[in-house]
Amino acid sequence: MSARIPGTGPLVITAGEPSGIGPDLCLALGNRDDLPRLLVIGDEVQLRQRADLLGIEFNLDVLHLPFPVAVQCGSPNPDNAPALLEGLQLAVAGCLAGEYAGLVTAPLAKNVINDAGIPFTGHTEYLAALCGAALPVMLLVAGDLRVALASTHLPLRDVPDYISQDRLRSIIEVLHADLRHKFAIPQPEIVVCGLNPHAGEGGYLGHEDQQVIAPVIAEMQAQGMQIRGPIPADTAFTPAAGERDAVLAMYHDQGLPVLKYAGFGHAVNVTLGLPIIRTSVDHGTAFDLAGTGKADAGSLLAAIRLAEQLVTIAATDAARA
Amino acid sequence: MSARIPGTGPLVITAGEPSGIGPDLCLALGNRDDLPRLLVIGDEVQLRQRADLLGIEFNLDVLHLPFPVAVQCGSPNPDNAPALLEGLQLAVAGCLAGEYAGLVTAPLAKNVINDAGIPFTGHTEYLAALCGAALPVMLLVAGDLRVALASTHLPLRDVPDYISQDRLRSIIEVLHADLRHKFAIPQPEIVVCGLNPHAGEGGYLGHEDQQVIAPVIAEMQAQGMQIRGPIPADTAFTPAAGERDAVLAMYHDQGLPVLKYAGFGHAVNVTLGLPIIRTSVDHGTAFDLAGTGKADAGSLLAAIRLAEQLVTIAATDAARA
Repeated sequence: MSARIPGTGPLVITAGEPSGIGPDLCLALGNRDDLPRLLVIGDEVQLRQRADLLGIEFNLDVLHLPFPVAVQCGSPNPDNAPALLEGLQLAVAGCLAGEYAGLVTAPLAKNVINDAGIPFTGHTEYLAALCGAALPVMLLVAGDLRVALASTHLPLRDVPDYISQDRLRSIIEVLHADLRHKFAIPQPEIVVCGLNPHAGEGGYLGHEDQQVIAPVIAEMQAQGMQIRGPIPADTAFTPAAGERDAVLAMYHDQGLPVLKYAGFGHAVNVTLGLPIIRTSVDHGTAFDLAGTGKADAGSLLAAIRLAEQLVTIAATDAARA
Repeated sequence: MSARIPGTGPLVITAGEPSGIGPDLCLALGNRDDLPRLLVIGDEVQLRQRADLLGIEFNLDVLHLPFPVAVQCGSPNPDNAPALLEGLQLAVAGCLAGEYAGLVTAPLAKNVINDAGIPFTGHTEYLAALCGAALPVMLLVAGDLRVALASTHLPLRDVPDYISQDRLRSIIEVLHADLRHKFAIPQPEIVVCGLNPHAGEGGYLGHEDQQVIAPVIAEMQAQGMQIRGPIPADTAFTPAAGERDAVLAMYHDQGLPVLKYAGFGHAVNVTLGLPIIRTSVDHGTAFDLAGTGKADAGSLLAAIRLAEQLVTIAATDAARA
């Protein structure tokens, strides 16, 4: 239910941490002629300097947001952090107002923003707060493999207690609703991984699968949802788990190693549970590659393509309504 | 250093839980003419009955081990459990004595053996005890992807405290030695996954990566080992992690989902740290498929092929020595 009519304007791209590869990727894609209309938020002067450094043509529409400090490739400066967050604020406000069709984000470096004295746990949480969304859900997409996460950036030892029935129920509801509305899958089939190896093996390897996860799945099935589990994670991604539109992993390293292996270089991060369309690259700032011309724009390209698909679905939905 | 001269005799196959698919797989492979010499340990009378049920020719060399109770497909009987363990004892004794070249195991059902009142945590631990090996290490192989596990069948919440420096050091030593000796890789390159997501992200997501794992890796590097990490698990399996002969995952569901995704239907489990060659299927007893003819022998076939390779390597080694 979180989908709303997207704007008919451009996709807005935040160029991300300016001393990382985000600007390089935007500049590279600006020279393609097979993409939808894009508007990049960043410091246009510095983006032009990066294009010169890379020796490529500057071909971007930019919403100019001046950065206070000159950018040096590979050396992030926390003094630019407030401007980066302002860029996200402008992007979200424009999406919510219908000026932009959706948001695609290049990578930020969390610690640089924290070093500026600004509490920041990640793009996803920050965007959710800007949108007033209570529960953003991280979905990674690579081809026809979709992996959602019930927990994201937590130390491993905090995961078991984090997965409560209430939280799991809410996450499944968001996932199911957005597969229907954002991805236009009328009856989504969801496979849920167990928390423990072998999904707890009947209680021999932990009790959470039987006591926490199974009852929530039974409840969802009773409501008519096509959902199965808890299934051992080493089965859940294979054909043995049967047809599925998404796999819900209980934690980061249960789901993402498979996804990144399957979709190396073209995986996309989608935030579910937001009233706007938001996709993102699946990689970090790669400071060592900034300005070298060696950064691979595959994930940003895939993120733009997926955002374009989601915009089309939303527009079709809106036209029908 | 755990390799020893293998016998020149046959590979010995334990047919596993008789009411599961193990016998079906052995019978199917018995009719291939492109395999090395095999000797199956099991109840020959009941194996012949299963062949009749499946409507296939019986073409196995069997070391007959009578089971006290008639086998019913899909209905395991704990009264047969002692005979199954006796089969493993015969197999290991024969390998240690040089009568058999190596051991390939079809699946058992742990709970059936436990229901017989026999403590049994798994094939791997049981075989290690029979061999007097202190630290068996589980390695899964699918094509050129090899994934070793620093912990195996533990509830997720017990994993972080289980990964001690001493244990990690010992596991890496076994992995490194057996990649050299069993797999004939002179300078094995090992990638070690972090315990926490993003390998702890500099301590923001848990301290074990910096405090437990990194110092052990540094120590191993100082000894001349080609080993890198801790690397985020969602990078470790991709080309971004560079060349590697094996990835060491910290726990079951960090490593096996990728391995099973990559090698669906032909993954093999190898036990490192034993003085014998031992490979195994990567799947369970599949009670619902026993006697139906629908079980896929791909993993047992791959386990036999890999055992054959390891035997050849060991024989070449022995001839050189």
